[in-house]
Amino acid sequence: MGNADYVYPSTNVERTPRVVIPPPQSSMKSLKYNLKETFFPDDPLRQFKNQTTSRRFVLGLKYFFPIFDWAPSYTLDFLKSDFIAGITIASLAIPQGISYAKLANLPPILGLYSSFIPPLVYAMMGSSRDLAVGTVAVASLLTASMLGNVVNANENPKLYLHLAFTATFVAGVFQASLGLLRLGFIVDFLSHATIIGFMAGAATVVIMQQLKGILGLNHFTHSTDLVSVMRSVFTQTHQWRWESAVLGFGFLFFLLTTRYFSKRKPKYFWVSAMAPLTSVILGSLLVYLTHAEKHGVQVIGNLKKGLNPLSFTDLVFVSPYLTTAIKTGIITGVIALAEGIAVGRSFAMFKNYHIDGNKEMIAFGTMNIVGSCTSCYLTTGPFSRSAVNYNAGCKTAVSNIVMALAVMVTLLFLTPLFHYTPLVVLSSIIISAMLGLLDYEAAIHLWTVDKFDFIVCISAYAGVVFASVEIGLVIAVAISLLRLLLFVARPKTFILGNIPNSMIYRNVEQYLNTSSVPGVLILEIDAPIYFANSGYLRERIARWVDDEEDKLKSSGETSLQYVILNMGAVGNIDTSGISMLEEVKKVMDRRGLKLVLANPGAEVMKKLNKSKFIEKIGQEWIHLTVGEAVEACDFMLHRCSPSPLKEESEAYNKV
Amino acid sequence: MGNADYVYPSTNVERTPRVVIPPPQSSMKSLKYNLKETFFPDDPLRQFKNQTTSRRFVLGLKYFFPIFDWAPSYTLDFLKSDFIAGITIASLAIPQGISYAKLANLPPILGLYSSFIPPLVYAMMGSSRDLAVGTVAVASLLTASMLGNVVNANENPKLYLHLAFTATFVAGVFQASLGLLRLGFIVDFLSHATIIGFMAGAATVVIMQQLKGILGLNHFTHSTDLVSVMRSVFTQTHQWRWESAVLGFGFLFFLLTTRYFSKRKPKYFWVSAMAPLTSVILGSLLVYLTHAEKHGVQVIGNLKKGLNPLSFTDLVFVSPYLTTAIKTGIITGVIALAEGIAVGRSFAMFKNYHIDGNKEMIAFGTMNIVGSCTSCYLTTGPFSRSAVNYNAGCKTAVSNIVMALAVMVTLLFLTPLFHYTPLVVLSSIIISAMLGLLDYEAAIHLWTVDKFDFIVCISAYAGVVFASVEIGLVIAVAISLLRLLLFVARPKTFILGNIPNSMIYRNVEQYLNTSSVPGVLILEIDAPIYFANSGYLRERIARWVDDEEDKLKSSGETSLQYVILNMGAVGNIDTSGISMLEEVKKVMDRRGLKLVLANPGAEVMKKLNKSKFIEKIGQEWIHLTVGEAVEACDFMLHRCSPSPLKEESEAYNKV
Repeated sequence: MGNADYVYPSTNVERTPRVVIPPPQSSMKSLKYNLKETFFPDDPLRQFKNQTTSRRFVLGLKYFFPIFDWAPSYTLDFLKSDFIAGITIASLAIPQGISYAKLANLPPILGLYSSFIPPLVYAMMGSSRDLAVGTVAVASLLTASMLGNVVNANENPKLYLHLAFTATFVAGVFQASLGLLRLGFIVDFLSHATIIGFMAGAATVVIMQQLKGILGLNHFTHSTDLVSVMRSVFTQTHQWRWESAVLGFGFLFFLLTTRYFSKRKPKYFWVSAMAPLTSVILGSLLVYLTHAEKHGVQVIGNLKKGLNPLSFTDLVFVSPYLTTAIKTGIITGVIALAEGIAVGRSFAMFKNYHIDGNKEMIAFGTMNIVGSCTSCYLTTGPFSRSAVNYNAGCKTAVSNIVMALAVMVTLLFLTPLFHYTPLVVLSSIIISAMLGLLDYEAAIHLWTVDKFDFIVCISAYAGVVFASVEIGLVIAVAISLLRLLLFVARPKTFILGNIPNSMIYRNVEQYLNTSSVPGVLILEIDAPIYFANSGYLRERIARWVDDEEDKLKSSGETSLQYVILNMGAVGNIDTSGISMLEEVKKVMDRRGLKLVLANPGAEVMKKLNKSKFIEKIGQEWIHLTVGEAVEACDFMLHRCSPSPLKEESEAYNKV
Repeated sequence: MGNADYVYPSTNVERTPRVVIPPPQSSMKSLKYNLKETFFPDDPLRQFKNQTTSRRFVLGLKYFFPIFDWAPSYTLDFLKSDFIAGITIASLAIPQGISYAKLANLPPILGLYSSFIPPLVYAMMGSSRDLAVGTVAVASLLTASMLGNVVNANENPKLYLHLAFTATFVAGVFQASLGLLRLGFIVDFLSHATIIGFMAGAATVVIMQQLKGILGLNHFTHSTDLVSVMRSVFTQTHQWRWESAVLGFGFLFFLLTTRYFSKRKPKYFWVSAMAPLTSVILGSLLVYLTHAEKHGVQVIGNLKKGLNPLSFTDLVFVSPYLTTAIKTGIITGVIALAEGIAVGRSFAMFKNYHIDGNKEMIAFGTMNIVGSCTSCYLTTGPFSRSAVNYNAGCKTAVSNIVMALAVMVTLLFLTPLFHYTPLVVLSSIIISAMLGLLDYEAAIHLWTVDKFDFIVCISAYAGVVFASVEIGLVIAVAISLLRLLLFVARPKTFILGNIPNSMIYRNVEQYLNTSSVPGVLILEIDAPIYFANSGYLRERIARWVDDEEDKLKSSGETSLQYVILNMGAVGNIDTSGISMLEEVKKVMDRRGLKLVLANPGAEVMKKLNKSKFIEKIGQEWIHLTVGEAVEACDFMLHRCSPSPLKEESEAYNKV
């Protein structure tokens, strides 16, 4: 690279101020700041500042029960919209609720119970205007597989039911505690890629489970992995019922067609929203008229009339199965939270209002605690139902109340109508909902943008499909964390070069027209320097210097005199990192090279000052920008060539 | 803040080139690069490039057995220095070896065995010229406490001995595998602060254990925690032997005095190096002459004459205790590695030569595998012995060979001399060595420089002293990792201001004389944007904008129009991070603000391009420096005031 066009805009080294050590701050104050950023990044107490006590009480009430905030300004127009949205989602909630309860191996009526009380609780406490509360397939499946490991739902349905309530209670307590302790950020550790892979895997598993209903099988494996399910399906080919399969595929075709139609013409969103209920009605009529239940088509059977019975006496806390209930509660609780909050946030973004994650967790938690005492199992804000709610034009959480009332009417008067509903229709409804979760486009996007995220996604998927839902989740979280640790342990370092006719220095691999500065090696470290990477950085810096010296030697250019470290991207440094810098300084001194720092940040300067590293390197060798550091080096190079450092280096060696 | 002095050096917006998307690179190539940086950061294969096969073989031999590298150029002068150093460390190794073997509840003779074979192996394979091989107190204590949990060394000494050999074998295999698999960086996850706290805690525990010897107690607790030991000591005050205590404190005083003297006058390093052996000789003579062994002063007793018996038939791989042996091997192996490599590196730095961590691990591992087959237990490079070696002027690993030969002579002819050596002298030797590990000055340094490192250090110390060595280690590593995760989850963000008379923008909290730019908010994100922090950053950016708008509203200044994000320190971004940026862009658009990026790096530009974010934000809103971004905003502000963005924002809303 030629350096003929290398011109300094100014030769005045003292042009701008030196790098400043930030004003001292008490440990207490900085601790307080750090705690605030960790637990209150959204500053929820902001509104309480400078208010009277009574005003604060009202604000606090509104904080925990947002209904007091929006109810006074509720209008009849809103009610009209909310009513339509509420009826629409009720028509979806009833068949879906029954289907998911079957998926969880729980009595179908629990699906209706869970669409009655929890939405009422959420309407008072939730801050999303678009979320429609209900049970979800993945949590239902997890409940079935985790509780099913210790209790057989068919042999001991009562114990199984009670464990499901207990798990829901645990999930609620866990969710509310996360919110109260401001630990909501734990959910952030489930990355976007993890969730895509995990959801697709869970959807695949759920679809495979539906083969039981579609094929009209009586016996089926309790495992959820692909191999077990396929073995179970293909070892009993003689048990397959064609009547069931025809009905199932027929309704699936109907549901998918309506969804495709509604997707093409968003105005007719209600076509796909109503399709499940229509399928249920058509299916029930068909069975009733043809008496297909006597020809191998299984039906729901009797559903008890009446509202939710109380169930807090059913919670079991002294049982050999308690640990299973707790484990199930925590895992399903986290997954339900992740889905509910992601859904709430997406719709809030569309309508430009704010969702407080921690507050939502308290709402979800309370909803599940109350639910577990009133015969409901785990509920959250499912994406599909919330999307219908949004499309149906809901304005506030009143749509949830309308849905709850519709479900109440069903519970009180309409349950006998579901007697002849064929299970195969429920399977079709589940499959149709699950197909939407197989987001292969998102996976392709991950592949194009970030290979590592794609690996995380695929691992989560494969883990769920080939092992189990829990294992898939653990694998995905472990890989994500490993990536974070690897990122910290192996930060990027690169050489900077001068952008022609400027004082700007940038990555030579990104900007190909940069030129190097004779006798000066400029390195950028692109991460904080911590114990986990200080060993690596020491080796890496040494290697950069070796490489540069080799290159210069072979081309016969000016030998290396200065090594500038651009610290602009080094956000923090710990004591191991400072030791590393001290070692690098010593090694450089011994090799007759001068170490120069450029643009260290506030935190770094503070620590370098406290550890006396600034005295060791000399304040005059710390510059505000790379440009100034290069200017200073150049000035020294031309003042006392050929080697201004030999004396200094010898002086150092005498010390 | 006044903006009167805010002058732009140039108004030509197109002065420098745009931010460049780096040239595309195949996935294979970037994967190869990442793997190399992860596993081969020190580029060990560099020397093998462009060589003939036979030359490669010779280089490979020299790589694994550095003795072939330096032996040909070995001189008589070197031998003279190495001989003196070797004899000096032998005089330290013999009493220390016996003491540490007692600490590990193993026969004292094992201490001598372990100072014979392993140093010979290391001399051939090790790359440090200063390391003196031997057993260490912490690993001995860990062996005693971990194996002691399952087997009582007094009741079943043979099984205990065999498990100790097995644990050593496991440690060796583990160490060698880490080296061969290039996983040496795992040791880096033990931070400097962790090691200081852990070592001090272990030293405290070891010193407390010596109360048994000093007070001449026959019974003693097997626990290592402070509470158990103190209870054990003070419940048997009637058993204390004053003769023992007087002897013990007398020798301790002697040892500490010699050490103090040698520290003041480094020329007389041999005074403190010889002191342990002198104590042993004096103590043995004293006991022999006064027959104190009959008055409650316990002595070593008979030591078998002869060299190491083979022990590979003693390794037990089918035993209910195998898991304990494996656990002990792995934990002691890692700790021994951490100490050995840290010691090797420090001395290499003093003498300016290079230590390859992974190669050293292979050497340590082989040494312990061979050792476990020749009646040795875990050895590494202890700091105290290596420091004596260094001070004694050793030149190469030949000093280890000299030490081994001296120990061999002892084993063959001199063991009867140790018959009358009082155990209390061994306790004094251990205490005196351990006091040097209580590095309170380092702890104070941590407190001044980095509070969090101090917390890690104290937690490790408290964990070791009040619970157990393993718990202390686990706590310290967990806190260190938590810190890394918290750092990634809560990156720093800050406002940048203009440094007067320049185009430079810096943190307003660090540089108090900066001035803000009317209508423009400049934020810097100081970490890569990953799933773990994208949620936080979204909230935090929103809060910065809110705060700025509030401030401007209350002071009646120009309203906010532009938000510039300085991405210079954002080393990488994943798909969750890109989604976050997209959301921020949407929210800004909706609020009528324009989002501008400054200086995104190569990796970030690549991903923003692949995910089409560059198209969304517009290439013209991505600038090379903050200064240029501000210039461009300023140009737009003055071109079409009062609000150039209202139309654009409305246009967006129509889309």
